[in-house]
Amino acid sequence: MTGSKSMGIKEYLKERAALVDNALQKVFAEDQSAEAKMREAMSHSVMAGGKRLRPILCLESASFFDADEAAIMPAACALELIHNYSLIHDDLPCMDDSDFRHGKPSCHAVFGKANAVLAGDALLTKAFELLASAGADGQIPDRCRIRAIHEVAVACGAGGLVGGQVLDLEYEGKEVGLAEVEDIHRKKTAALLTASVKTGAILAAAGEAEVERLGKYGYSIGRAFQIADDILDEVGDSKEMGKPVGADQHKATYPAQIGLEPSREKAREFIQQAHTALEPFGDKARRLHDLADFIVERTV
Amino acid sequence: MTGSKSMGIKEYLKERAALVDNALQKVFAEDQSAEAKMREAMSHSVMAGGKRLRPILCLESASFFDADEAAIMPAACALELIHNYSLIHDDLPCMDDSDFRHGKPSCHAVFGKANAVLAGDALLTKAFELLASAGADGQIPDRCRIRAIHEVAVACGAGGLVGGQVLDLEYEGKEVGLAEVEDIHRKKTAALLTASVKTGAILAAAGEAEVERLGKYGYSIGRAFQIADDILDEVGDSKEMGKPVGADQHKATYPAQIGLEPSREKAREFIQQAHTALEPFGDKARRLHDLADFIVERTV
Repeated sequence: MTGSKSMGIKEYLKERAALVDNALQKVFAEDQSAEAKMREAMSHSVMAGGKRLRPILCLESASFFDADEAAIMPAACALELIHNYSLIHDDLPCMDDSDFRHGKPSCHAVFGKANAVLAGDALLTKAFELLASAGADGQIPDRCRIRAIHEVAVACGAGGLVGGQVLDLEYEGKEVGLAEVEDIHRKKTAALLTASVKTGAILAAAGEAEVERLGKYGYSIGRAFQIADDILDEVGDSKEMGKPVGADQHKATYPAQIGLEPSREKAREFIQQAHTALEPFGDKARRLHDLADFIVERTV
Repeated sequence: MTGSKSMGIKEYLKERAALVDNALQKVFAEDQSAEAKMREAMSHSVMAGGKRLRPILCLESASFFDADEAAIMPAACALELIHNYSLIHDDLPCMDDSDFRHGKPSCHAVFGKANAVLAGDALLTKAFELLASAGADGQIPDRCRIRAIHEVAVACGAGGLVGGQVLDLEYEGKEVGLAEVEDIHRKKTAALLTASVKTGAILAAAGEAEVERLGKYGYSIGRAFQIADDILDEVGDSKEMGKPVGADQHKATYPAQIGLEPSREKAREFIQQAHTALEPFGDKARRLHDLADFIVERTV
């Protein structure tokens, strides 16, 4: 990857994230139904930062089919709210017990456990409200809107996002194999990323084959993304804590299971699959191509 | 109310609850996407019992407009899943800290706090999946399906169900007035009951005026239901714990705020409003009439 190409995608991501941030701000400003403290708890985590990868993927795939960006935006925001609800609940003391997120105190650290549970619940619920209001002025066919809601709900449920966290907790401290690690990666990361890319295409009334293709792209970058994350953890560990790479054999990570270099190879394979999925879309897929490369850039 | 009329509604409720139980069993049996333990945690609370009031209200109001019951049933089940998700989260140690529900150990008491949070999350998510699949074979117009999802999401969010629990926790041990108690009742109980009745009508393609009328009925019985609950608490307290009625003046309940007899009067007023809302529907509203009476029967 050349330096200029890399600059291009970084600028693109920054610009798109700012657009999404702006829309998210409006979501919180326009909905005054919650108590002030709950509004604060909900927006605290969402506005604390993040790459806005899910909304960006949704908007980008919708743009393939000439969708009106304003009509898609509520759904894009919904995906970010869902991502943040899952982080808030994952951070709870009874789960991963993490007091920091994006370098800031996590929701329960600021607002208490009860409010963190409720803020997560409210964000998940708000996400479905937003999904049900995307394209409400007739810009998106109702059948597409219903299908997008169904797609997201399945991706986030006990067979997807929630299921991934269930496995993550269940396998903690246990001896697990590669199959279990892959299962966590599929559910905890790839499911919502797949749904994000598909949601944009579905709402833009794309054909079935195109939705599936873009879903395959989302799945592949989701898998690569999580392996890259595992690699960064491992490299970070071995650098900062001075322990040998791979010492923690039972950890539910790719490098712990198959080693660092084979993990890098696996991530590259998934990125290749992502590129292949985009082939029929030609030049309009340029940003998604670059995004795929960018995701594993620091690790492979 | 005559004895035979009262028997009639009890038998009706029992029969309808059995129908809903059966549908809920199928929901859990058909969805094998979750890990066995998570499936168990999800169904544990839902199948532990309950009146199934929300699904029954949804099905009954849909029947006014000759809806196909099988097409409405997934939405009816969704409302019960949402009710149970809120109970599971409310029971958590960081919230109301209740180890029993319907006479059985609560979700976190059996499966641990983390799984209880996740089971609630999964039930809420599954509810939206079910709402998005109700009438998927073309029996319900897509615009009605979308509208029902929006209605339920708003009722369950930070301005509704979640917001009610936020207030309940916030006002705990604080000196509150009647306005605060009413606010909790509106959000914590009336919002989802209103949405339940409206959802049936919306999915059955009822006209706007009819949906609003039925919503008014749902709101009124919701308010009466919660006052009746407060009264039972108070009467129970004074009987079982030997403390004088109204001693706990700062408690966020109706009797604590305005006294026992005025609370009964208020509940009767709401039931009267519920009856009035049903008037244009004539004889087909008989069950909803009886249901309204039944809700406050033990207390007024």
